[in-house]
Amino acid sequence: MAYSTNTIASEALQSSAMPGEETRIVIGNVTPQIDCGRFPVKRIVGETVTVEADVFRDGHDQIAGAVRYRQRGAREWQEAPLTFVDNDRWRGSFALEEVGSYEFTVTAWTNTFGSWFRDMQKRVAAGQDVRSELLEGRRLIEAAAERATGADQQRLQSGLREAATEDVSAALAVMLDDGFAEVVQRYPDRSAAAMSAPLLEVKVDRERAGFSAWYELFPRSYSTTPGQHGTFRDAARRLPAVRDMGFNVIYLPPIHPIGRINRKGRNNTLVAESGDVGSPWAIGSAEGGHDAIAPELGTEEDFAFFVQTVQELGMEVALDFAIQCAPDHPWVKAHPEWFYQRLDGTIRFAENPPKKYEDIYPINFYGPHQADLWNELLRVVRLWVGRGVRIFRVDNPHTKSVPFWGWLIGEIQREDPGVIFLAEAFTRPKMMQALAKEGFTHSYTYFTWRNTKWELTEYLTELTTTEMAQYYRPNFWPNTPDILHEFLQHGGRPAFKLRFVLAATMSANYGIYSGYELSENIPVRHGSEEYLDSEKYQVRQREWEQPHSIAPFISRVNQIRREHPALQQTNNIRFVHTDSESIIAYVKQSPDRSDTILTVVNLDPFSTRECQVYVPAWELGLPTGGAPFVAEDLLTDSRYTWHDGGNYVRLDPRHEPAHILRLSPEGFR
Amino acid sequence: MAYSTNTIASEALQSSAMPGEETRIVIGNVTPQIDCGRFPVKRIVGETVTVEADVFRDGHDQIAGAVRYRQRGAREWQEAPLTFVDNDRWRGSFALEEVGSYEFTVTAWTNTFGSWFRDMQKRVAAGQDVRSELLEGRRLIEAAAERATGADQQRLQSGLREAATEDVSAALAVMLDDGFAEVVQRYPDRSAAAMSAPLLEVKVDRERAGFSAWYELFPRSYSTTPGQHGTFRDAARRLPAVRDMGFNVIYLPPIHPIGRINRKGRNNTLVAESGDVGSPWAIGSAEGGHDAIAPELGTEEDFAFFVQTVQELGMEVALDFAIQCAPDHPWVKAHPEWFYQRLDGTIRFAENPPKKYEDIYPINFYGPHQADLWNELLRVVRLWVGRGVRIFRVDNPHTKSVPFWGWLIGEIQREDPGVIFLAEAFTRPKMMQALAKEGFTHSYTYFTWRNTKWELTEYLTELTTTEMAQYYRPNFWPNTPDILHEFLQHGGRPAFKLRFVLAATMSANYGIYSGYELSENIPVRHGSEEYLDSEKYQVRQREWEQPHSIAPFISRVNQIRREHPALQQTNNIRFVHTDSESIIAYVKQSPDRSDTILTVVNLDPFSTRECQVYVPAWELGLPTGGAPFVAEDLLTDSRYTWHDGGNYVRLDPRHEPAHILRLSPEGFR
Repeated sequence: MAYSTNTIASEALQSSAMPGEETRIVIGNVTPQIDCGRFPVKRIVGETVTVEADVFRDGHDQIAGAVRYRQRGAREWQEAPLTFVDNDRWRGSFALEEVGSYEFTVTAWTNTFGSWFRDMQKRVAAGQDVRSELLEGRRLIEAAAERATGADQQRLQSGLREAATEDVSAALAVMLDDGFAEVVQRYPDRSAAAMSAPLLEVKVDRERAGFSAWYELFPRSYSTTPGQHGTFRDAARRLPAVRDMGFNVIYLPPIHPIGRINRKGRNNTLVAESGDVGSPWAIGSAEGGHDAIAPELGTEEDFAFFVQTVQELGMEVALDFAIQCAPDHPWVKAHPEWFYQRLDGTIRFAENPPKKYEDIYPINFYGPHQADLWNELLRVVRLWVGRGVRIFRVDNPHTKSVPFWGWLIGEIQREDPGVIFLAEAFTRPKMMQALAKEGFTHSYTYFTWRNTKWELTEYLTELTTTEMAQYYRPNFWPNTPDILHEFLQHGGRPAFKLRFVLAATMSANYGIYSGYELSENIPVRHGSEEYLDSEKYQVRQREWEQPHSIAPFISRVNQIRREHPALQQTNNIRFVHTDSESIIAYVKQSPDRSDTILTVVNLDPFSTRECQVYVPAWELGLPTGGAPFVAEDLLTDSRYTWHDGGNYVRLDPRHEPAHILRLSPEGFR
Repeated sequence: MAYSTNTIASEALQSSAMPGEETRIVIGNVTPQIDCGRFPVKRIVGETVTVEADVFRDGHDQIAGAVRYRQRGAREWQEAPLTFVDNDRWRGSFALEEVGSYEFTVTAWTNTFGSWFRDMQKRVAAGQDVRSELLEGRRLIEAAAERATGADQQRLQSGLREAATEDVSAALAVMLDDGFAEVVQRYPDRSAAAMSAPLLEVKVDRERAGFSAWYELFPRSYSTTPGQHGTFRDAARRLPAVRDMGFNVIYLPPIHPIGRINRKGRNNTLVAESGDVGSPWAIGSAEGGHDAIAPELGTEEDFAFFVQTVQELGMEVALDFAIQCAPDHPWVKAHPEWFYQRLDGTIRFAENPPKKYEDIYPINFYGPHQADLWNELLRVVRLWVGRGVRIFRVDNPHTKSVPFWGWLIGEIQREDPGVIFLAEAFTRPKMMQALAKEGFTHSYTYFTWRNTKWELTEYLTELTTTEMAQYYRPNFWPNTPDILHEFLQHGGRPAFKLRFVLAATMSANYGIYSGYELSENIPVRHGSEEYLDSEKYQVRQREWEQPHSIAPFISRVNQIRREHPALQQTNNIRFVHTDSESIIAYVKQSPDRSDTILTVVNLDPFSTRECQVYVPAWELGLPTGGAPFVAEDLLTDSRYTWHDGGNYVRLDPRHEPAHILRLSPEGFR
């Protein structure tokens, strides 16, 4: 709800002012629009926004209109003409050429000359005396000529001269000429044009926000010396291999000094033993806080080297932003008022009674200290942007003030609209939606817990066909350091492969947590989604080169994503019918329809499944009536001759759990 | 769209002010709401509004809230508590006790004590040391005690005294007492309460707006002397018979002096012969305009007598308001600028090229004269309100400025919120909706052209289950002086009866044009919906007492409507399944579920039809599992024993085309 309009609306309800002619044309139900314009819709630079509105007025007069739009901050409005759709619905669209924000509104005016032109044709056809109407038409053309410029103006003026004759039919020949009328209507009288309100906004993000593959890693695990704590430079040596797998975002958990007071031990034990490295999310110690780098990872220069290496490999660094402090975080001493102080003088650690998290102090966002605190948090994010980080993965944003995020993201993106924020909120649906509306570029989803065909179909349909498609940009993660779903625990390598294919082909944005390629699947205990010997609390060095690694499979899928624009969008997904509850199939097509990818996945990691997959050939622009087209499996390079209707598919999860099929009339790449 | 918020919204988009704590709780998707609060929803006095909203905040703290509401103009807000529904959805409701306008908003705050109470119970259960939390609880109770008054304050203070002990368990016994906690939570700290915006409005109409039966008559046809022009006093003699038929609104076409220039003759001929009375919609002559009474109908006193007679019979007068003028209307001379002046100096008559309506001049609503014109139109309506007319049927409002109606109705209802306006707009859906949003109390509908089971089901479902149910109050007319549908032309007496039952039982508000009871069905020509010898252009005296008159049937149906609250609402309609395309069935139930009416209509006026009607007994609170209940036909007094599932129905249109069945467990009225 738009709090700021409270008083205005109240006045509006009571106002009895006589409305001016600019309200005569009714403009309503303008789309796209989120919560009455309180929040922007989201798009990617290079895309187009199609705006629609109900536009009409009393009587029989014709109307015309336009979508007015401009980049935020620009003074001049640009316009795209409205064209009639049906049932008083009009449509116009404009291209988003710059990253940032665009605002748009809909305007409409009475097409007086168009109405005159239409009526005049009918009058003439009925053989009526039209001399008076002829004069009126002349008036309208004269007025248009005054508004016109250059060649158009000359055309109108010469037309007026020609039509200045007693010979009615000669005058009509000029004034009822379609081309001439078209010129007249380029210069309408818009003095009483209606304008929709409020202004609506489109948030335009850079391309990576629309298409990205994330890889999460803990730099401390990348020393090649057994038992030794890894550094940025150690991790940098691993980057080429990650790039070769096809990832383009390297996501780092917090890299700040880790608290020593109440530090957690391995497997989340309450008491750390000497040598335990602690959780990166327990931020801050004598060595510094959110603006510092943990010495054991390296120096600022080492971090700069890491960032630079990532960039040289065509990737980007995403940094974790977790607003919470270890008991020895510098802020605790400097600003105890930023925390919740108990009446016994101590500071309240995080808890969800009766559970206690004594290694973490939550922040109190409100109070007399609000401005100091919020500005310090803003400073921290600015600092890391200055150090080359333009992607932030935000830890548990739903446990912090929602409007705070709108403010922080707004401030940062005002300076650099290309900065991307990913909300790690695994909570109730409306909170997750609210955070996306407030400005988060990406959002984690329930994908991790959606495993059946019905669950996946329902969820993807909600994400891509409801209002959420306008503002909620999903980022699919089959695993995270916190979530090892039992489907992966029990499904083995086939489960890892099929869940990867689902994430990478359903959503244009997805990511995995390192170790996934090795099918790491041991939980800390039965019934838990936590990893055994979780990297959150200890160093985990790995032997990456293993025969069972699915890295080659991951590389191939990411290569297919890069080569196929159809897979570089999320909302273009369309599920197609299969006659097996274990096999899900969905098609994506590029905007120009030149690229059509049908993904078929066997959701059963244990057994071979077969079924008919029904291809809606007609809707995809493929041959129909039984005529053949080519289905080429981009994973195996095998080619099949398919046709509209049912096509036989058999998937053995031990071999390949999925087809990623390029459908084409002729079958050539 | 809320034009007035244009600049605000634009600023909101650019603002980077730090949001205050009062925005911390998110309140969204408040319902009922029309076009972001630009227009009110409509209700009837005595009804209740149920408000819902998404309400949530960050973290684990509990929240509480209320619907704030007040009558327009009242200073004090009243509150109804919000209760949790599901999925962050909350609900509260309030009663509408006065005709007029109510405004409401949703407020919510953090229930700090409730959160403390919940957490404390968990801490105690876990055997934790809670001494510090005990102090915090004390603080919260002390603060509540300061806000509390009277007995509550004493209860809190004595509780604090009891709890002031070193004995923790004794203190807890007091502070964790449910009754005590309930008192504490009556006095929350609302200094940072969130408030939804904009203010939303409920337009509350008087009872007749919710339940009415209209009868349209031309007083000039009611002289008992053959060939003589009737008067108000003639028409008054007919009123008891109309009352006996059960109608409660007498709608009069325009009663003003009828233009003589270009007066239309019988059957809409262009040239009137001497003695032709003309169309009442060609308003104005030397004898006066919209504020005058046609001398041939009587004097102001005669009109006052007519109005009084109507009222004494428990009915009301509805007057036609048609904003257009005959060429000899006084305004034409006095204010030629109020019309469209052609360049040859003449004034433009109404036309829809190539059609011309030379007996009528349309009004030009905009220009320098706007204020004079609009205020004069306001004066005219005020004048008739002063003469006892509180219902206006507005002629073709869609050919006049839409915002004009919002302004006019607003001005009139500010003085008398009980004045009812019916929009006679037979045009495109969105214009009809816009007029209802602007303030028309009732709206004509497409009912007249909906004759098949599918058409009726689709249309009623749209009217009663979409957003339209909130603001669009339908008024069903089987016929009007302009519309004699071919279904009536060919279907004979059964068609008139079945269409009447549909109108009177589907919609709480409906009307007929006099002559309907005699099944008048002769069109002016084949394929036309106009009556032969239309009363619009001539006097039509009728012999009302005829054996084939359906007046007794009409009386019975109207009596059933009066006796059954289930039929006194429109949006409570629910269609039930029948296995015949010719038989439609729908059930209505009173809010207290004590009155359940199932109407079954044979839509085929020519042949007997039979089918099974499936009664959803469980949903209606009727016996299930094959147990019997009584279906009593209120038209024929016959009684049937029915049960859930299919029940046999046979309807012979020559006998009765419909059942109006009262369903009851025991079967007694």
